[in-house]
Amino acid sequence: MTLHQQTAPQTRRDRGLDALKRIDGQGGEAVVNALADIAPDFADMLLEFPFGDIYTREGLDLRSREVATIAALAAMGTATPQLKVHMQAGLNVGLSREEIVEICMQMAVYAGFPAALNALFAAKEVFAEAA
Amino acid sequence: MTLHQQTAPQTRRDRGLDALKRIDGQGGEAVVNALADIAPDFADMLLEFPFGDIYTREGLDLRSREVATIAALAAMGTATPQLKVHMQAGLNVGLSREEIVEICMQMAVYAGFPAALNALFAAKEVFAEAA
Amino acid sequence: MTLHQQTAPQTRRDRGLDALKRIDGQGGEAVVNALADIAPDFADMLLEFPFGDIYTREGLDLRSREVATIAALAAMGTATPQLKVHMQAGLNVGLSREEIVEICMQMAVYAGFPAALNALFAAKEVFAEAA
Amino acid sequence: MTLHQQTAPQTRRDRGLDALKRIDGQGGEAVVNALADIAPDFADMLLEFPFGDIYTREGLDLRSREVATIAALAAMGTATPQLKVHMQAGLNVGLSREEIVEICMQMAVYAGFPAALNALFAAKEVFAEAA
Amino acid sequence: MTLHQQTAPQTRRDRGLDALKRIDGQGGEAVVNALADIAPDFADMLLEFPFGDIYTREGLDLRSREVATIAALAAMGTATPQLKVHMQAGLNVGLSREEIVEICMQMAVYAGFPAALNALFAAKEVFAEAA
Amino acid sequence: MTLHQQTAPQTRRDRGLDALKRIDGQGGEAVVNALADIAPDFADMLLEFPFGDIYTREGLDLRSREVATIAALAAMGTATPQLKVHMQAGLNVGLSREEIVEICMQMAVYAGFPAALNALFAAKEVFAEAA
Repeated sequence: MTLHQQTAPQTRRDRGLDALKRIDGQGGEAVVNALADIAPDFADMLLEFPFGDIYTREGLDLRSREVATIAALAAMGTATPQLKVHMQAGLNVGLSREEIVEICMQMAVYAGFPAALNALFAAKEVFAEAA
Repeated sequence: MTLHQQTAPQTRRDRGLDALKRIDGQGGEAVVNALADIAPDFADMLLEFPFGDIYTREGLDLRSREVATIAALAAMGTATPQLKVHMQAGLNVGLSREEIVEICMQMAVYAGFPAALNALFAAKEVFAEAA
Repeated sequence: MTLHQQTAPQTRRDRGLDALKRIDGQGGEAVVNALADIAPDFADMLLEFPFGDIYTREGLDLRSREVATIAALAAMGTATPQLKVHMQAGLNVGLSREEIVEICMQMAVYAGFPAALNALFAAKEVFAEAA
Repeated sequence: MTLHQQTAPQTRRDRGLDALKRIDGQGGEAVVNALADIAPDFADMLLEFPFGDIYTREGLDLRSREVATIAALAAMGTATPQLKVHMQAGLNVGLSREEIVEICMQMAVYAGFPAALNALFAAKEVFAEAA
Repeated sequence: MTLHQQTAPQTRRDRGLDALKRIDGQGGEAVVNALADIAPDFADMLLEFPFGDIYTREGLDLRSREVATIAALAAMGTATPQLKVHMQAGLNVGLSREEIVEICMQMAVYAGFPAALNALFAAKEVFAEAA
Repeated sequence: MTLHQQTAPQTRRDRGLDALKRIDGQGGEAVVNALADIAPDFADMLLEFPFGDIYTREGLDLRSREVATIAALAAMGTATPQLKVHMQAGLNVGLSREEIVEICMQMAVYAGFPAALNALFAAKEVFAEAA
């Protein structure tokens, strides 16, 4: 039985919405809502592919998935709003603040000190809002 | 006793070399050797800062550190040789092939399908060499 | 009726495979085949999301979709294999060689001369193979 | 004697100014004006090379040129002000709002969901100002 | 007792702090202070590696080092706060405003006009604050 | 009548060709020649804008211009062929091998260790060919 065999399309979207709520929390729902009047189909795709297809896969635990996402977005440096959503998501799935800070610091090695600094200052804002 | 308490500066380099060997294995040593005739001081810096300072820190386990590095390098798409070294490093510190494949696939969400595809094909080469 | 309403999952994959063959031709099928032994689920996702969901949408003609993809990949500069597949795809959906060259040249304005040069040399290879 | 004086540059510059006004409209003129006190020669270069040399070329229609530019800037993710100017330019040369939204959505495939999301939110602002 | 006190690294950290003050001035100190409550060890690393290890090396004069940094950050386009700190640093080590403007303009060739424009507008802000 | 015929462009083009030969040497001429059968107008633009307009400007010395270009291309990591041409150009206008190595090393701070490593290995090839 292949991955998608048992999923009717609405199931895929619902599974994604479920994962989005559990992982990204309010930040994720806010993104979906903000798409409603500009690209509602894209809100569906966002639920279906990243959340319905990827985050629900076995093979890598959710905590590691958020480590990967925080690292990638910090390194890329072009997606601060999404980085902040996933720092909150990291906290939601069990990463500690210290671990998130360590990921940001490590990015100095791979993407340079400015990428690490900007990620650390984003973390500071996320932690302040979460306090 | 803090992390750096007992380390004289030369120890920092040695601690880095130790970490490099344990994590990156032969791939890491090959990089250090390749620097010998062009920028030997940079070989020292590579041992000291990424490996002596960052990878030896408490606060994030080595397995998660390699998840972060593989994700970042896959997303950036500008560092294929280093991505391959760290896929091998991931295997060295306990990631399974399946987990590495999952990290690459997940990068399609954050950096696009070409980044994920190129990372998967790099993984294919690393796994073939490791076989 | 919304986009996904009538599509059982296998339809989505089949619709994607159909679009992939029509647009990317042999280059696209080669990518799908190369994924078989490393990440077969990702081959499904590649068929389903980019080709099943995006390229089959109304709202933008296929020719314009390939203009967008060639421009983006040329500007990013990190995805030469995919750029070449989409230059061939551009020819397949009706772009002329001259138009593809113009897109590459225009990228000098937005991503710099090296990005434009590297894209032009990729085009040269694609046109030589297509001759 | 200024740099361009002997190359009858007013022709090239004027052709560029004409194209800039027609394509980018007020957004383009605002950029040129903002350069006046920091880098006036660069305002000339901006008129001459992108607008005088590239956008006035035959070989690719203006509509396709704006598809390419919007796609590239959305994918790069480092040029939000310029992306917004060119979304307005796209409307000026005949792209519909729906087509611009489709280009942004398609960038999820090549540059990731954050790039597409940030481009869609930029489009939302441009469309609100144009309303 | 600070982190590195008995590893004789205070020399390295102090040398870095000295270089940071001389080169980046208040902007650099502000960054170090902003790290105090989120990642104090990273403040140490920032002093030690970039400033203690790199900027104090012979082999390239400080003026050229700032040319390199301004060019790189302008081209990358993901580090505006750091670009502004280093434009001020460039003035501190002897670059003229005209030279900084020329570096930004030149980046149009290598990273595109948007990168150059955004760097020029950053320079405009830095010069206004320095006036 | 070609595009630039009426703007006395031979002056601008010739000035660019002169600068290209003096700065980039054989590497630059090879690029111009390689464009002849795919995009000859782009060869003209390459001579006219980067070399005719930018490199011939007063306001920044040629040596500093090459420092800026090497740093930017090393940091971007997407333009290895052009980075190598400009490392040779740096040698042509008076940079020492040591200075080029220092620029590469410094990029570890701003763009990460992989960018610095890949630039250093490019330098190694350039120096071997120049020997």
